[in-house]
Amino acid sequence: MLHFVSKRLLCSFRPRTTRVKWSPALTALLQVHFQSTVAADNNNRTDIDHNRIKIHRSERLKPIVPNKDLVFGRIFTDHMLNIEWYKENGWHDPIIKPYDKICLEPSAMVFHYSFECFEGLKAYKDKNGKIRLFRPEMNMKRFQRSAARISLPSFNEKELFKCLKELVRLEERWIPAERGFSLYIRPTLIGTQESLGVGPTTRSLLFIICSPVGPYYKTGFNAIELLATTENVRAWPGGTGDVKVGGNYAPCVKPQIEAAEKGYQQNLWLFGEDDEITEVGTMNCFALLKNEQVTPPLDGSILAGVTRDCILYLARSWNEFKVSERKITMSEVKTAAEKGRLLEMFGSGTACIVSPIKGIHYRGLNIEVPLDSNNPSNQTGPITKRFADTLMGIQYGEIPHEWSVVLN
Amino acid sequence: MLHFVSKRLLCSFRPRTTRVKWSPALTALLQVHFQSTVAADNNNRTDIDHNRIKIHRSERLKPIVPNKDLVFGRIFTDHMLNIEWYKENGWHDPIIKPYDKICLEPSAMVFHYSFECFEGLKAYKDKNGKIRLFRPEMNMKRFQRSAARISLPSFNEKELFKCLKELVRLEERWIPAERGFSLYIRPTLIGTQESLGVGPTTRSLLFIICSPVGPYYKTGFNAIELLATTENVRAWPGGTGDVKVGGNYAPCVKPQIEAAEKGYQQNLWLFGEDDEITEVGTMNCFALLKNEQVTPPLDGSILAGVTRDCILYLARSWNEFKVSERKITMSEVKTAAEKGRLLEMFGSGTACIVSPIKGIHYRGLNIEVPLDSNNPSNQTGPITKRFADTLMGIQYGEIPHEWSVVLN
Repeated sequence: MLHFVSKRLLCSFRPRTTRVKWSPALTALLQVHFQSTVAADNNNRTDIDHNRIKIHRSERLKPIVPNKDLVFGRIFTDHMLNIEWYKENGWHDPIIKPYDKICLEPSAMVFHYSFECFEGLKAYKDKNGKIRLFRPEMNMKRFQRSAARISLPSFNEKELFKCLKELVRLEERWIPAERGFSLYIRPTLIGTQESLGVGPTTRSLLFIICSPVGPYYKTGFNAIELLATTENVRAWPGGTGDVKVGGNYAPCVKPQIEAAEKGYQQNLWLFGEDDEITEVGTMNCFALLKNEQVTPPLDGSILAGVTRDCILYLARSWNEFKVSERKITMSEVKTAAEKGRLLEMFGSGTACIVSPIKGIHYRGLNIEVPLDSNNPSNQTGPITKRFADTLMGIQYGEIPHEWSVVLN
Repeated sequence: MLHFVSKRLLCSFRPRTTRVKWSPALTALLQVHFQSTVAADNNNRTDIDHNRIKIHRSERLKPIVPNKDLVFGRIFTDHMLNIEWYKENGWHDPIIKPYDKICLEPSAMVFHYSFECFEGLKAYKDKNGKIRLFRPEMNMKRFQRSAARISLPSFNEKELFKCLKELVRLEERWIPAERGFSLYIRPTLIGTQESLGVGPTTRSLLFIICSPVGPYYKTGFNAIELLATTENVRAWPGGTGDVKVGGNYAPCVKPQIEAAEKGYQQNLWLFGEDDEITEVGTMNCFALLKNEQVTPPLDGSILAGVTRDCILYLARSWNEFKVSERKITMSEVKTAAEKGRLLEMFGSGTACIVSPIKGIHYRGLNIEVPLDSNNPSNQTGPITKRFADTLMGIQYGEIPHEWSVVLN
């Protein structure tokens, strides 16, 4: 914008203020001056700048939804954060405004070529009423990586995080003050250029919306049974399985429906000729063997989950069993189950923290996964529960830990 | 909608018209009656019905853009077709209305999980002023397959095609009457439910927009040089490489940019340890060897292109060389080039028909692909050109063929 203002100024100079004799040299000099001003200004405006945030408060606040009525990702707060990006001049001023529709031309690239990536993190209210976030810098970094993979613009993560905090502070009344409840925060970046040509977008919109959510399992843990998916593949080396781009998700629904139709709660993703385990539904996957905890390695085809990272860190700090990031095949799981060496299995993710697994249907076989041998009525194994309790304790500030960031 | 009306009717019955003694049995009876009415009605309304189309003509038609100013997918016509789908009652009435923005909640699933698939086909104006489409039934069928792969609703292809024709007829003035020019038609289906849960959408929007386009190469053919992509992989068996879903496209841009930065016009997609050729940019790929034309088989990881299918059909009907759908590796292409057995290579797609290839940069090697040995200044090999001329002849109705469908 200022680019054009300066150009106009330059043009208007010539006819009006000609007391000194106007020379081509002077024109050139002034042009250089203005161009460098413009460049500096563009540089200043290129990245997200929290100091330039504008806040338009909603005049009609919605009624808060009671905790018992919350369904994941269906209720949204009063405001949203919008930041537009243009190839010519970078990121525009961040705007917090009433939660409202996004209106785009039908040719907007996000509708055709999936220029879209997102993040998911939560804000918690602790016993002292303080707002806490959980390892938000990991989400900001991954958001950046996801954007880069699909050629969406990069941004200053720290400035974006400041804007995010501003929004969360404004929506404080929406953060449920009950253990197990939280405010789910969804930063999203979409390509909005009006063009059917396949190429990098010249225009983008970053927005953040917030949704109050309840515990994944309303009545405590419910161990799930999985159907191993053998027809479809979630991701592959050189693809996009390690980033949170929209394109990874819609194709997951078919195997999910197939699993549900056969009575399974989720599908288990496999890869390769030897049926390596990769993910479970939209979660990372862990197997606890005798003396070893195994999760697939970050080889480019699985998502680097924040919860996954926490579980590995906690397990290593406990130093009670071997902690491995390595390939694990269905054949190994099957044999371990047969020989009593499979102790527990679970999925991990931001939505559920951990999700205990009680069985896998795999190529006609039913593999039973133990839960709690001491208490068969329990819906979770003891280690799985320990991860859940520890992580929740940290998230709600009951266990002091640097992962939990208090919002100032 | 009617479902709710009936329910309301049912409720209002009870308090008001109680002359006969109201019994649970009567309630049940009435409920059955209303439910079956609703079911019948739902059945009637479930699919797309061209007879119910509503047309709202634009009051301010845009000026037609001169052919010379057309850029692919940037100019759009005056109207668009919209058909909404709801899980409860299926497809609503098709509506043709002025081309306008699509307004969705920021939580609409299309923005987060890439519930989006599309098609691309063209309308041509022949010498007699007749409008012609090219094998549109193939696009309708593939559109259906794409939708199914990402759990979007199915539809009656024939009824949708009737609606599409209605739109094209209305936009007749936008179809350029010049050989090489056409009206690009873009049917798109998106999931619009307002939910952050990953699962099948309960609400969708099918829309069709149209864009007048020029020839892919304004000054005749321009043979392209390719950079073989070895870091990223486009698709995988069990993935979505054989359907036109949005998620296949955004991740393609990074290798495209890498190719462009090194001076290549497109990237060549490879697969597997032996570097099989799969696609070129967003096109199918053909190699002409001595006595054999080779294109990768439809093994689930490449798109079943309409132009690809035409080329195979034409080549087989010519019966001059062997026509193979088989795996072809870079090593085979390299050896063939070295031994003078590589005659021509080209990409194929709706946008360009064919795109001649003059070279491939592959793992440090430059593989030269011959163009026309009789006329080195030509930008295309003779067989490549023959495919282009034949297909264009059919598309513009100069060569009579059942592929070209005159719009009545």
